[in-house]
Amino acid sequence: MILQGKRTWVYPKPPVIIATGTVVGPDEGQGPLASEFDLVHPDLEIGQPSWEKSERALLEQASDIALQHAKLSKDKLNFFVGGDLMNQIISNSFAARTLGAPYIGVFGACSTSMESLAIASLIVSSGAGEYVMAGTCSHNCTAEKQFRYPTEYGSQKPPTAQYTVTGAGTSIVAREGQGPVITAATIGKIMDLGIKDPFNMGAAMAPAAVDTIQGHLQDTGREPGYYDLIVTGDLAGVGHPIASEMLRRNGVQMDQTKFLDCGLMIYDVENQKVQAGGSGCACSAVVTYGHLLKRIHKGELRRILVVATGALLSPLSYQQGETIPCVAHAVAIEASNSEKQGDAAP
Amino acid sequence: MILQGKRTWVYPKPPVIIATGTVVGPDEGQGPLASEFDLVHPDLEIGQPSWEKSERALLEQASDIALQHAKLSKDKLNFFVGGDLMNQIISNSFAARTLGAPYIGVFGACSTSMESLAIASLIVSSGAGEYVMAGTCSHNCTAEKQFRYPTEYGSQKPPTAQYTVTGAGTSIVAREGQGPVITAATIGKIMDLGIKDPFNMGAAMAPAAVDTIQGHLQDTGREPGYYDLIVTGDLAGVGHPIASEMLRRNGVQMDQTKFLDCGLMIYDVENQKVQAGGSGCACSAVVTYGHLLKRIHKGELRRILVVATGALLSPLSYQQGETIPCVAHAVAIEASNSEKQGDAAP
Repeated sequence: MILQGKRTWVYPKPPVIIATGTVVGPDEGQGPLASEFDLVHPDLEIGQPSWEKSERALLEQASDIALQHAKLSKDKLNFFVGGDLMNQIISNSFAARTLGAPYIGVFGACSTSMESLAIASLIVSSGAGEYVMAGTCSHNCTAEKQFRYPTEYGSQKPPTAQYTVTGAGTSIVAREGQGPVITAATIGKIMDLGIKDPFNMGAAMAPAAVDTIQGHLQDTGREPGYYDLIVTGDLAGVGHPIASEMLRRNGVQMDQTKFLDCGLMIYDVENQKVQAGGSGCACSAVVTYGHLLKRIHKGELRRILVVATGALLSPLSYQQGETIPCVAHAVAIEASNSEKQGDAAP
Repeated sequence: MILQGKRTWVYPKPPVIIATGTVVGPDEGQGPLASEFDLVHPDLEIGQPSWEKSERALLEQASDIALQHAKLSKDKLNFFVGGDLMNQIISNSFAARTLGAPYIGVFGACSTSMESLAIASLIVSSGAGEYVMAGTCSHNCTAEKQFRYPTEYGSQKPPTAQYTVTGAGTSIVAREGQGPVITAATIGKIMDLGIKDPFNMGAAMAPAAVDTIQGHLQDTGREPGYYDLIVTGDLAGVGHPIASEMLRRNGVQMDQTKFLDCGLMIYDVENQKVQAGGSGCACSAVVTYGHLLKRIHKGELRRILVVATGALLSPLSYQQGETIPCVAHAVAIEASNSEKQGDAAP
């Protein structure tokens, strides 16, 4: 039985992340993690005639890079699991057309990174696939255009807003191979405490992160200290302190130096004009696949829990006065024995 | 190993569909399958102040009905797997908030019905969940408003267009219990033969249905005659004959009396004003869960393959001149031994 507790999958034979691909745009290329990504574009256009095509190109490039890293031809992929913020997840559907792999479209807004990884891991772990790619992407200009205003308008934002990451992150999950392993995943419930402001999604998503972290610890019987790091997806400068405070009040003892947020890590939030920090499907994807897995490889981290958060609103739902339902999906990634000995492939 | 061939899951211990819920609107209530649905609404409003809330209500009702049929309280559900046509699949996300179950959002346009059922079955079959609900919904007025024009405008359509089904279908998949079983699923690849016309989605989707049917037969080594019926999702009057012809040219011997289409079954296409026939996420969901499973229960059918088709366009993608990528996911449903003996619960 893979199911442990109410909603956590503990994979009996942990699938391996044999390769990843990360591609980002210029703002991320000026952030503190710039050197960790496989490809940094100097501009937002990426040689494409529309922002939507730029976003798709990011994902296609990240897919190609992961396949190159894995030394795998794309016809070996059993499935591609992915989604994004665009209406009808067109970036992933069009990239899946290019890739040619059987396609499982998913949607969890910015939690899509870990939702797709959890499902890919379930497929591999259960013997339903040998090589499965999980991927997601976002682009600052497509997200602003669709959810708020085209960036060309130059409209202002409050400091609680977040800055959508331009990038794409993919991983290839396999039954065998070298790399960190996925030991568990916890699927989120919808949490909605009544926040309606799309410029304050960190606050809206914080309860979902807290609920999933507590659910994961309860289902697995683990203490927070089991993990070297617990990293939320993109709560950023407003949401992450709220999550910390909620966990404290709920009696969950977290070492604050081991509780980080991808939205705060990807930018120099003080000096880059990113309001409260990063967000977007690519945020937790590129920070996890680019930065955190490298730290596992270097032996700096052995066990991490990535808790990707998603705000499941649509422009229509908030125009109609609805509150913002949120979700968070968590995936536990651990160093494999080979990496613990420091002899894994890069 | 669940994986058979390239992209087909053959479930070692076939999960059981222990209950379903189907809710439809007035047009479907005037169609030939009206008596097969659990709840028929006499109007499109369903007591709600917006079309989006009406669509969500359909799904919430179909979820409640399935739980009642299964005599299961909602806290027993391990996961809810669902998606819909709305931007950011808001109908499912909001319904998942009401349901309270851990939520896996998926998107395959009108193929979502079988995508969600395939994933729910994988979860149950692999021991990653005991009770998993799969669900989807669509509403004629939300889909027209979002993809084309609000119905209030009264804009005309060509006869190749399809009519979005107003309805919702849910199923509860379990490890044990009485009901038909899910023996296999084949995940679709993106097929895109260059059609750009959103008023002719049947033609666009036909190659995806053909590819998945052939992939399924190849992976499983089965002949079309293994199934009492092979039913496409919603190719309707234009797409279904194209699929038949493509299969014939590819040398797949199909008995045309056993090759049907949900979009042609749900309406009296000749006499109801539905252009080429039905479409929408709910189309294959309510026809499968309402009508086809009842025929299995009655002993009229023993093995069916439901091939739900999806056109993965967005309004933006076709406005930008893109072609329509399409996908089809197939699920094989068979009578259980108890049903073969005619003693299953209704």
